[in-house]
Amino acid sequence: MTEERKVTITAIAREAGVSVPTVSRVVNGRSDVAPETRAKVEELLRQYGYRRRTQAPGDRAALLDLVFNDLDSPWAVEIIRGVEEVAHASGVGTVVSAIHDRAGAARQWMTNLRARASDGVILVTSALEPVLHKELHRLGVPIVVVDPAGAPALDAPTIGATNWAGGLAATEHLLQLGHRRIGFIAGPPRLLCSRARMDGYRQALEAAGVGLDEALIAPGDFYHEAGFNGCRRLMELAEPPTAVFAASDQMAMGAIEALRQFGLRVPQDVSVVGFDDLPEMRWSAPPLTTVRQPLAEMGKVAARTVLRQARGEEIDSPRLELATELVVRASTAPPPASA
Amino acid sequence: MTEERKVTITAIAREAGVSVPTVSRVVNGRSDVAPETRAKVEELLRQYGYRRRTQAPGDRAALLDLVFNDLDSPWAVEIIRGVEEVAHASGVGTVVSAIHDRAGAARQWMTNLRARASDGVILVTSALEPVLHKELHRLGVPIVVVDPAGAPALDAPTIGATNWAGGLAATEHLLQLGHRRIGFIAGPPRLLCSRARMDGYRQALEAAGVGLDEALIAPGDFYHEAGFNGCRRLMELAEPPTAVFAASDQMAMGAIEALRQFGLRVPQDVSVVGFDDLPEMRWSAPPLTTVRQPLAEMGKVAARTVLRQARGEEIDSPRLELATELVVRASTAPPPASA
Repeated sequence: MTEERKVTITAIAREAGVSVPTVSRVVNGRSDVAPETRAKVEELLRQYGYRRRTQAPGDRAALLDLVFNDLDSPWAVEIIRGVEEVAHASGVGTVVSAIHDRAGAARQWMTNLRARASDGVILVTSALEPVLHKELHRLGVPIVVVDPAGAPALDAPTIGATNWAGGLAATEHLLQLGHRRIGFIAGPPRLLCSRARMDGYRQALEAAGVGLDEALIAPGDFYHEAGFNGCRRLMELAEPPTAVFAASDQMAMGAIEALRQFGLRVPQDVSVVGFDDLPEMRWSAPPLTTVRQPLAEMGKVAARTVLRQARGEEIDSPRLELATELVVRASTAPPPASA
Repeated sequence: MTEERKVTITAIAREAGVSVPTVSRVVNGRSDVAPETRAKVEELLRQYGYRRRTQAPGDRAALLDLVFNDLDSPWAVEIIRGVEEVAHASGVGTVVSAIHDRAGAARQWMTNLRARASDGVILVTSALEPVLHKELHRLGVPIVVVDPAGAPALDAPTIGATNWAGGLAATEHLLQLGHRRIGFIAGPPRLLCSRARMDGYRQALEAAGVGLDEALIAPGDFYHEAGFNGCRRLMELAEPPTAVFAASDQMAMGAIEALRQFGLRVPQDVSVVGFDDLPEMRWSAPPLTTVRQPLAEMGKVAARTVLRQARGEEIDSPRLELATELVVRASTAPPPASA
């Protein structure tokens, strides 16, 4: 804080016989100041050389609300980055909130949203209570859902990714390297994206004429520990896999840690593929081969869609899936000669 | 998007003989609508059962601006999380922006900031052009700087972390495990935090009576590649270290990858300590021993400070440093018996 600024605001407040926050409100062009107070403060601001807001309150910059369940998801920053880039370029501010699956926080957010007259809402969750969701619709605020997880659809345009094609590409990559026993660590079965990734895995095996061994499928929930436990379980099979495809990067990291504890090297002894391509994955040891979800791009498309809706324009489609892409790094190799 | 909502807004626009965005502006309580148009639209909104904003525009919810240079920093989401938690609880919206070290983006942001009459600004960078910085002060908007990097001080309250104490704790941990040859991969020397971490390293060695070998200090810049190259260089010494302390987690990951390529195991052959404790570090293989920077807590303190300033209250101190903390995981162990 500049001493100068502080001194000036304090001096103006004293000279005008008002509080410091009142001077601040005048500086910020807020309307909740009595006209004669405003005139007095503005005259002093001019004397002190302050620049005043030139826009009327009604012209205030547009805002859009970007709402997460939790901000500790490793996805969050990528999506924020994409939304912010598009919004910023349009002069729109991105208000980021987390509602933590708590009704209280969601209600508080609704109150704030109403008060700030947000022009649109991007939900990175569908866990908003139905009653709040209804209320959003009644407010007439455009809504777009960014849905990397394939959660049950809301009644709003949704931006997802091609999970099935990603599962297919990851498995085909391992098949092309010569693997035949390929383990799979699944996501939570209630999410559509988990089922799509597993179906891609099954489809690739079938197309390659490799029989599916159900013992090679371990349950999971996308978190690190499930990857660790799932991989241990696969490696303890009488005939363990030579490659493991984990349906999330976090589970792939857990699998690599389990292999390390078994004394197995990645990729010399066992190959590992993940899903997501979180930014950190290029720094893992070894750098992870994984399926890239275009999270920032999904954020961009969501922002463009919600801004289009706010202008009353038609949107492209109620459900868009952006392409996933296999990124080959150092965690995959042909199976060991003995396998 | 609900078909119902769309149909209703379109129907109201048609009945009122105005555009869809005009209806949206009335719904959102914006003031830039002619009074007779507003009255007509409001009457129709009532008939269609829309809920209207009840607050006057001057009472709009408060906003604070959180500004990063780049949103791809692994810090970003932790700081957003902390700021959002405090702001949300106060009914304040957190507008997140990235200015990418580009004057154009920073200017656009300044324009948006003025227009939305933000109540305070948290900068997670000090790279704002001096001219914009001056302009911010002239606007009378409170500013707080969150400064995990120890960048040159701005004329504003600053929230940092105890980098020197962190460097000391990391090195003491390795000394207590029995290491005597401890390599250090430094951060960029222009940043105060780099110098503080290195001084903590030197101080711990000196206090333990272990002579400092300048050959064990490799230059770095906090990024992965510098950790990789720095560690290679250390391991190629005639007498390589048995432990490496990298001044950032990303460099620690690079070091672990270099060790993997040398066929050296972590921690059996070489111990590695990082600095930051990014959320992903608990999933690395092996999980990383590192110095925790309380980034979310720094965000919280910054939000409380800027909101306090916005209310015209006194702040605690122009420079606060929150405590760092050593987190011991699996990447450190006593040196190999032969060492």
